Amino acid sequence: MGKYVFELKMKVRDYECDLQGIVNNANYQHYIEHTRHEFLASTGISFAELHRQGIDPVVARLSMAFKTPLASRDEFLSKLYVKKEGIKYVFYQDIFRLPDLKPVIKATVETVCLINGKLKESETLNQILTPYLSE
Amino acid sequence: MGKYVFELKMKVRDYECDLQGIVNNANYQHYIEHTRHEFLASTGISFAELHRQGIDPVVARLSMAFKTPLASRDEFLSKLYVKKEGIKYVFYQDIFRLPDLKPVIKATVETVCLINGKLKESETLNQILTPYLSE
Amino acid sequence: MGKYVFELKMKVRDYECDLQGIVNNANYQHYIEHTRHEFLASTGISFAELHRQGIDPVVARLSMAFKTPLASRDEFLSKLYVKKEGIKYVFYQDIFRLPDLKPVIKATVETVCLINGKLKESETLNQILTPYLSE
Amino acid sequence: MGKYVFELKMKVRDYECDLQGIVNNANYQHYIEHTRHEFLASTGISFAELHRQGIDPVVARLSMAFKTPLASRDEFLSKLYVKKEGIKYVFYQDIFRLPDLKPVIKATVETVCLINGKLKESETLNQILTPYLSE
Repeated sequence: MGKYVFELKMKVRDYECDLQGIVNNANYQHYIEHTRHEFLASTGISFAELHRQGIDPVVARLSMAFKTPLASRDEFLSKLYVKKEGIKYVFYQDIFRLPDLKPVIKATVETVCLINGKLKESETLNQILTPYLSE
Repeated sequence: MGKYVFELKMKVRDYECDLQGIVNNANYQHYIEHTRHEFLASTGISFAELHRQGIDPVVARLSMAFKTPLASRDEFLSKLYVKKEGIKYVFYQDIFRLPDLKPVIKATVETVCLINGKLKESETLNQILTPYLSE
Repeated sequence: MGKYVFELKMKVRDYECDLQGIVNNANYQHYIEHTRHEFLASTGISFAELHRQGIDPVVARLSMAFKTPLASRDEFLSKLYVKKEGIKYVFYQDIFRLPDLKPVIKATVETVCLINGKLKESETLNQILTPYLSE
Repeated sequence: MGKYVFELKMKVRDYECDLQGIVNNANYQHYIEHTRHEFLASTGISFAELHRQGIDPVVARLSMAFKTPLASRDEFLSKLYVKKEGIKYVFYQDIFRLPDLKPVIKATVETVCLINGKLKESETLNQILTPYLSE
């Protein structure tokens, strides 16, 4: 997996394509959000359970470069690695089309943590995520 | 408004269209859900506030007939009337394209109420909705 | 698979849940549409390719009964069988939660075929689908 | 409108909120896409019509900063201005909550034009958009 610590294989669903015949851009946000949540789940973190404890990781800033559009029924790999920068966790998330591994999007997602609505570090998250951090 | 007790004017957004160039069917469920919530709001009921009180109106059964598809940027009227049948509220929801008023969908939505997860009548809802019921 | 001719294993994505904490109803329409398209693909039919040939299978009528809501990260099986009734193909589509196989929704989806915008039988579809029909 | 050349008043629909009780981030991409398309329409450009002529404006790069989340039924203003930088049109798109005008998101959307699949300037778009450009 190289620099990546997690990857998820997915497939375009037709309803995600818009009238240009390609995946509507907003769906890439769905894909990468789902990948982050699956990554967190793989480390033992449940996003819905965190929410019930008053801990809400939220996206503060997002940037995406669109390289090659996905079309109906394309399969793809959604990969990520993550760095800690100050109080932020920054997820580097790239999607590659299968089978040619052509880059689809390159995204950077900066997240912070709200605890009962206040911006704060979550010790729970920090302990769990430390082993997965890139430098 | 004839037999209808509520109507909402809306407009197709391009991202709601799929690769057939017309509104993806699932979006009609969004349109009619939004119309029900706006109707409830117009009677003083907040769907999100109900949820915080443990009262969740849920859809038990839905049926939709698709007459004419809406396309990019079409405007339409989403109308409803409602009957009480036993413990269910049944919403009759029709969408008409503008300006020709061609029928787009005809839907019937049967809802019941969960109070703290149990099927039950909500006195709050009953009191508020009674004046709006059709026979 | 019993009476079913196709099944697809899927998993709830968090963005499909709404503020009630369960899958928003419109997403069940997405799930069953995706299942139909995967079924068609498994028989050699590409929905996007059909569209390019001017053949658009469309949903004429849909009914869904909601049994048990799916929640964040639930896995489920989406199953279908199909009958031909006159010019319509009627898809019977049921979703079962994993691992307890509790029924989630039961749906009936009546589809017809538009060829260059006109209601018509598609010989291509008929030939391909015949071996999969239930009586 | 200050530096903005277009604004659209919108309202959160409940199905756009996720299990955190706030608008799911991907929907902001929907809101700003819809705003761009409404802006283009106001200048006489139809996005769907362009597509039929083989002209597809596509997003090459997007960045969004999330300031304050919108919640169920919030109303908001979605505003934009646009600059031409080389072959790109860069849309600056900001959303403000009503009635307090609190900033919700600040986004930058870089678009390019594909003509029959090739990266190219569209004279049609250039002529129409020139009067609306900021420096």
